[in-house]
Amino acid sequence: MQIATPYLMFLGDVPDRLAAKTAYGINDWRPEWCVGQVRMEGCAADLGIPDLTLAQAVEHGCKTMVIGVANAGGVLPEHWVAEIVSALEAGLDVASGLHVRLGSIPRIAEAAERNGRALHDVRHTTETFPTGKGTKRSGRRLLTVGTDCSVGKKYTALALEKGMRARGLDADFRATGQTGVFISGRGVAIDAVVADFISGAVEWVSPAADPGHWDLIEGQGSLFHPSFAGVSLGLLHGAQADAFVVCHEPTRTRMRGVEASLPSIREVIDLTIRCGRLTNPAIRAVGIAVNTESLSEPQARTLLQEAEAAHGLPATDPVRFGVEAILDRLAAEFPA
Amino acid sequence: MQIATPYLMFLGDVPDRLAAKTAYGINDWRPEWCVGQVRMEGCAADLGIPDLTLAQAVEHGCKTMVIGVANAGGVLPEHWVAEIVSALEAGLDVASGLHVRLGSIPRIAEAAERNGRALHDVRHTTETFPTGKGTKRSGRRLLTVGTDCSVGKKYTALALEKGMRARGLDADFRATGQTGVFISGRGVAIDAVVADFISGAVEWVSPAADPGHWDLIEGQGSLFHPSFAGVSLGLLHGAQADAFVVCHEPTRTRMRGVEASLPSIREVIDLTIRCGRLTNPAIRAVGIAVNTESLSEPQARTLLQEAEAAHGLPATDPVRFGVEAILDRLAAEFPA
Repeated sequence: MQIATPYLMFLGDVPDRLAAKTAYGINDWRPEWCVGQVRMEGCAADLGIPDLTLAQAVEHGCKTMVIGVANAGGVLPEHWVAEIVSALEAGLDVASGLHVRLGSIPRIAEAAERNGRALHDVRHTTETFPTGKGTKRSGRRLLTVGTDCSVGKKYTALALEKGMRARGLDADFRATGQTGVFISGRGVAIDAVVADFISGAVEWVSPAADPGHWDLIEGQGSLFHPSFAGVSLGLLHGAQADAFVVCHEPTRTRMRGVEASLPSIREVIDLTIRCGRLTNPAIRAVGIAVNTESLSEPQARTLLQEAEAAHGLPATDPVRFGVEAILDRLAAEFPA
Repeated sequence: MQIATPYLMFLGDVPDRLAAKTAYGINDWRPEWCVGQVRMEGCAADLGIPDLTLAQAVEHGCKTMVIGVANAGGVLPEHWVAEIVSALEAGLDVASGLHVRLGSIPRIAEAAERNGRALHDVRHTTETFPTGKGTKRSGRRLLTVGTDCSVGKKYTALALEKGMRARGLDADFRATGQTGVFISGRGVAIDAVVADFISGAVEWVSPAADPGHWDLIEGQGSLFHPSFAGVSLGLLHGAQADAFVVCHEPTRTRMRGVEASLPSIREVIDLTIRCGRLTNPAIRAVGIAVNTESLSEPQARTLLQEAEAAHGLPATDPVRFGVEAILDRLAAEFPA
């Protein structure tokens, strides 16, 4: 999936900020792509960027209208359909993170066809990939892995990309989830791929590159999550990670959505190395990223120091303290 | 997917036995369901069961015509379409293992609709399952795992089912691949499921059962196969296996279809236990099944004795020497 940029951000008439979480994430990480927003009567979200008509958006060079919002009940409201059709008629592609497929709505499918515009349903993949081969690709790859789902794997990969680019390194974030796909304009929601093609899809997401190039690959799930470990393992094998960062949320007592207890950081490091060696015998841990939002700053610093000492790895909260410590370790372990 | 039995076996006009491999597999394991066959002019396959017209098949109680054959080029030949339409008009459901979806062919879709018959595409799953929960289910479960793909996992699970039933035990083969689904009349081709639902689909395939009941779950791929390990891990977690049998093919030098080298039986045992503990802390190996087809009988016996000594587990070739040794071990480890 390759989404043309820049974007016009469609916010509809969502009742709160949370319903536009994806749109905020895109705007946080790719402000240069978010040229303007479309808000309808009653919209409670505001990205703080110009409100544009469809005609103005086209004038400003927008290529794709992005539906980065959740709608209640899974049904696309009639006034959203009309706006999407108008966007297609104005010459924009439309990309959606909704559960419902844009192409399943006849008026939208017809308007896309009639105007020769693309529809992207980021949650769904109709594309079939080759199966993974496990053959070594050139370029360097870092994967973020987790003790659980939703512990900061996307954020950490994006923060590493930003930090590497600031150091003048050649680095690209590689998306494996829907918000990530919008942020990178490319990628696959890996959990929506047919099971046989998980690692093959990741090989496609992170293709061969220059030897000094870094892909920062967004992880999904956890090898220890009973619902999603298969996705995490296929992702690890497809990524052929040279390096990985373990992401962790210290207040969680159960794996998200299930009864299983959380693995330790040590268990995650050990199993990631053991399984990752299949496609990259030199795989190694290079850091720990902890979401310390619920801790005071002294508590957070203590916890991170303890993790550093226990594992011999730089430990940080990317949001609170940045990722320089991990980048320093990477620079030392992988000289240019 | 639940396929009504018994079956009328459609062989079309396949040019050789190999193209009807699935049909032979079904007839080998479920002869009581294979009431008759339909062979067209030039058909080179013959299951050795009565040739029936569609009307005769209905008279004999057939419920489903099974397309257990491969067609060249992925396109359904016109004379097959006509026969499938006739079967639907005669009152049969149709189940297919072809790549092409039956419902994607308008004449077939219309005939099914008009006659109120079901179409089953065993290679495809449109069904979405709940995500796996990892919560302990009652009943006992054995999973066949492998050092590679195509090393006898289905055969071993079926042989164990047969042997257990012969001992009067309450046991069911649980299918996770297309031939297996035809053989059990139920199940899911797990590699065709959307990645997020692998373990959830397996929880559906092998539901809670009586405490003494055994499910013999067909494994897929290998935790060491760079293309398919994600499927194997999700399957292991969803199966919550109490016991597993390692299947092996001793002459293979590379993993099927890729460059990766084969893991040892020891590595497979260790990683299966380590990962399987997540959803069943008591998981243990109970046997080794080796395909010794390419070895002389003395060679085979020597190899199996060595494997027994090395791993402290009964080792057998289920085709050549049966599975009694594994059943004895199971009976000892899991008293009724």
